[in-house]
Amino acid sequence: MCAESVKVNSDKLTQFVTTCFQKAGMPSGDAAIAASIVVATDLRGIDSHGVARLNNYIKGLREGRIKPDPKTQVISKAPATAVMDGDHGLGFIVGYRAMQEAIHRAENTGAGFVTVRNSNHFGAGGNYSMMALAHDMIGISMTAGAKGMAVPGSQGSGAGINVLSIAAPANKETSFVLDMATTVVAAGKIEIAVREGKSVPEGWAVNRQGKPLTDPKKFREDGGSLLPLGGLTALGAYKGFGLTVAVDILCSVLSGSVANNATMGNHFFGALRIDSFIPVDEFKKAMDEMYVSYRSLAKAEGVERITLAGEPEREIEKKRKAEGIPLNPAVVASLQGIARDLGIEYGL
Amino acid sequence: MCAESVKVNSDKLTQFVTTCFQKAGMPSGDAAIAASIVVATDLRGIDSHGVARLNNYIKGLREGRIKPDPKTQVISKAPATAVMDGDHGLGFIVGYRAMQEAIHRAENTGAGFVTVRNSNHFGAGGNYSMMALAHDMIGISMTAGAKGMAVPGSQGSGAGINVLSIAAPANKETSFVLDMATTVVAAGKIEIAVREGKSVPEGWAVNRQGKPLTDPKKFREDGGSLLPLGGLTALGAYKGFGLTVAVDILCSVLSGSVANNATMGNHFFGALRIDSFIPVDEFKKAMDEMYVSYRSLAKAEGVERITLAGEPEREIEKKRKAEGIPLNPAVVASLQGIARDLGIEYGL
Repeated sequence: MCAESVKVNSDKLTQFVTTCFQKAGMPSGDAAIAASIVVATDLRGIDSHGVARLNNYIKGLREGRIKPDPKTQVISKAPATAVMDGDHGLGFIVGYRAMQEAIHRAENTGAGFVTVRNSNHFGAGGNYSMMALAHDMIGISMTAGAKGMAVPGSQGSGAGINVLSIAAPANKETSFVLDMATTVVAAGKIEIAVREGKSVPEGWAVNRQGKPLTDPKKFREDGGSLLPLGGLTALGAYKGFGLTVAVDILCSVLSGSVANNATMGNHFFGALRIDSFIPVDEFKKAMDEMYVSYRSLAKAEGVERITLAGEPEREIEKKRKAEGIPLNPAVVASLQGIARDLGIEYGL
Repeated sequence: MCAESVKVNSDKLTQFVTTCFQKAGMPSGDAAIAASIVVATDLRGIDSHGVARLNNYIKGLREGRIKPDPKTQVISKAPATAVMDGDHGLGFIVGYRAMQEAIHRAENTGAGFVTVRNSNHFGAGGNYSMMALAHDMIGISMTAGAKGMAVPGSQGSGAGINVLSIAAPANKETSFVLDMATTVVAAGKIEIAVREGKSVPEGWAVNRQGKPLTDPKKFREDGGSLLPLGGLTALGAYKGFGLTVAVDILCSVLSGSVANNATMGNHFFGALRIDSFIPVDEFKKAMDEMYVSYRSLAKAEGVERITLAGEPEREIEKKRKAEGIPLNPAVVASLQGIARDLGIEYGL
């Protein structure tokens, strides 16, 4: 965290973002949904995917690339499955509607799977998989991202930085929320390193010649690519690449779009209704026991606690709800610029 | 490949393995199914999970740990989902039946998901996800494996080496088949290195103090653990660990079993019927185009061809079907031992 960051109340930030989306032409209900997803992302500490990117969305809406009031369409030929055409709406809205559709189908048949075309960047995947939790379901969300991954054996950025998220509820413990890019790190981590003036570890990225790249400021000028999860081929990069392709097949090919097309408009959502397998109480009790068993493993030197996916984010969320969301000066400047452009008050 | 390996005809090998399973008490139909899965694994070059492990299965059957004629039970509360109780049968048989159940449900509702408890080690995950291909479905299979993964922040092997497989059909191109352990490499790769007398790269495994381990022969005596996909924490190990936990939740918690229990008897299967999303022809055409687009990327120095998951295995399969399956002397000795124990002729 930078010393110069400013803490902003999350409710006020949500109100500000809602007003931005409304001013950019969105209906008030949709604007509020989209704003709550954006701010939920910042609350959970995923600073790369929250209000730091608001300018991109507002710009897209104002320039007409993103439709403010999309007529999304559900094409379904079977009770558990559907394709959604996003009508080029904002990814948050299309993603929200498609995940609701998956949940609705799972209520009826036990499982619901919806693949989406013609959407836009939907932010952090966890926002959608987590929608299943309140329904006592396991949630799945995926998206095909922008080109930016080095394909093993190739030069340049041949594959998308795709995202896979799975969420499952517990009882006393926090929910399990895996939310990962199929690269070693998400692209946003490079942006954060630039904003914070830090270098990045060797093994995150390569330049256009495939040589290690550690200065994040050189990422663009040197034609940088992120490495697939695994990093080097001998250390499993083909697995990270394989996951990327698998996510893209479910998001892009299955939705009737084109594989690896870098539009960021193809997603995939799934919901499994827990009580169609076993009683929800049993499931949640076993989840709690799982947390306790991992936590009681012998710790490595210097490690205070062993955590599962979703735990650090949940703790950041509690803290930020109480103390406010710290915004980097560059992000504050970007939000002030948006306010100016839209003719609204910043006031945060 | 070792110079001393012997090539064996795959049909003869299947017949031999069928006889072994029958002699160990299995009904002839099940014995043939299990044998075809074991040999299909060797045909695809996954030498770690084929007949090299036959002795474990035969021993389990003869000692009563694995039931030769399990009364598997399907407990279903919704059209798209079910739990299967494997009645402690051989994993190949339980896995085959559960994947058939998932496919059957997908025929009716578009999606079918079956989680399994009380099974046994089911071999390579790709054998089950690939069952969906002939039905023009996308197949998914997972299993919770034996303990053997170093949990980030802990000492020792705190998590299972779990497996995730996804298969999707193409038209002219080969099918996409991702079949991966959530560790940097599968445990079988350590066994292969021991059999072949080779060392393993740094980054695959650590000893009980968490120090790098490169001599595979020392893996057991030094309390070795495989690293999660990603390797080091800064390079995404928490993602490989997160995938491990996600697979375990679907296999173990959702089936009413206990998380991370190292029995190898918990699996998860899924099938998505492609024509419940888009026409099968369109899907397969887009898959073919995907292969062509990856193949046409600029290649790195010294690389002849860029391949997707499933392509190398398909080529090995063609070669081995024509020329026979090369068996390492240690594997030949193990099969001869099985033949002796069961009182049948080896004759390969």
